[in-house]
Amino acid sequence: MNPTIQTLLSHRSVRRYTDDPVPEEHIRSAVEAGQMASTSAAVQAYCLIRVRDPEHRRRLVELTGGQEKVARAGAFFVVCGDVRRHRVIAQRAGKPYRARLEAFLVAAIDAALFAQNMCVALESMGLGICYIGGLRNRLRDVDELLRLPGGVYPLFGLCVGVPDERPAPRPRLPVDAVLFEGGYPPDEVWLDALSSYDEEYEAYLRARGAAPKPWTRGIAESFTEPARGDLAAYYESKGADLT
Amino acid sequence: MNPTIQTLLSHRSVRRYTDDPVPEEHIRSAVEAGQMASTSAAVQAYCLIRVRDPEHRRRLVELTGGQEKVARAGAFFVVCGDVRRHRVIAQRAGKPYRARLEAFLVAAIDAALFAQNMCVALESMGLGICYIGGLRNRLRDVDELLRLPGGVYPLFGLCVGVPDERPAPRPRLPVDAVLFEGGYPPDEVWLDALSSYDEEYEAYLRARGAAPKPWTRGIAESFTEPARGDLAAYYESKGADLT
Repeated sequence: MNPTIQTLLSHRSVRRYTDDPVPEEHIRSAVEAGQMASTSAAVQAYCLIRVRDPEHRRRLVELTGGQEKVARAGAFFVVCGDVRRHRVIAQRAGKPYRARLEAFLVAAIDAALFAQNMCVALESMGLGICYIGGLRNRLRDVDELLRLPGGVYPLFGLCVGVPDERPAPRPRLPVDAVLFEGGYPPDEVWLDALSSYDEEYEAYLRARGAAPKPWTRGIAESFTEPARGDLAAYYESKGADLT
Repeated sequence: MNPTIQTLLSHRSVRRYTDDPVPEEHIRSAVEAGQMASTSAAVQAYCLIRVRDPEHRRRLVELTGGQEKVARAGAFFVVCGDVRRHRVIAQRAGKPYRARLEAFLVAAIDAALFAQNMCVALESMGLGICYIGGLRNRLRDVDELLRLPGGVYPLFGLCVGVPDERPAPRPRLPVDAVLFEGGYPPDEVWLDALSSYDEEYEAYLRARGAAPKPWTRGIAESFTEPARGDLAAYYESKGADLT
């Protein structure tokens, strides 16, 4: 196994960090490595906002549902879809800017590819990372805090720091429930692959000191109420067309 | 520079492949490495469909706008958002499944993080990759070809193969046009950073034998017509709620 694959397989989200700062040169190389990820027709529809201000970090703890790590991590970033650059450039060139759901999807995918490369680079340098999806809990407040202009909208947050824990890896679905040949199989095929996964997942939660629950039970309970129902209205208010 | 960062910085999309097959064990380890990417609350809202059937591959060349590499690459995959698993599991447990734009966004981001890890793993083993956004040109036809059930929808394609070219890297935006401190800067800041990038980008296109054009001119011309206007209707037909 080569060192890159070893890095990828060693990933665990790290939620406790030491007080050590993240070296600036590590951040810069990680951003450069992030940028080398593929991007749809080179549009590079993302940007990265680093938040250092301690009061802003405290406020972001609140806005992400009380996640203390958002204040404590050595560095915190907001990963944004950025179609502002395209809009401003088109406007200055006197060209119309017209975009539908495709542009929003490209921004989300471009930003995720960028962020993942960046995370892999950071982890290869011994740092720990944690994606903060909870940033989408109160996007309008995040937007106001950072005073984001039109065309720039947060997708997720990212904590980075020197790890102060070494958690066990969270087990993933069996490959046979994810990689399919030629088409999507009958549901029984992937359902069959899940019974041992449920046990494995439950054991992982127990070892972590969390309430044990089979993965499928957690999933069944996750979608009883629609999460983050104001996302579409927020993104549209920033100029995204979701049609 | 460590070998992982070297792998990340060496990325170029590869569009010409030799006839050599992609070793099965490389694919499997890349999928496993892909799965270790972060996933929102472990929902793992993606799946990967490998297409081997030569007739299907020919048809996919057509459906992606004549991209011959889709037939010629050693392996071709369709990366899908997959909320079917969640829906079926909820239904079997007698729980309601309710999801809004958040679920679609999670699927797109989860799938992209997975795919990017997978690509990094493949590249670390000497293989070449190319994302195929053109798969979104005619999604209904792709869907019909692969007979995808509800809750499973293609996001992009992925060519993988033994490289038969060593293209120059496509230059990326300067870091100062991507990484910002505390908020989004006035447009002049990132516009200033673009003038040398335009020249660099034009030189890259010229060296590649393509029509030279500054990056900003390409961007200004890219959005004059809205691309892929039927995406939202297609995704909604698969059960995605984009509101």
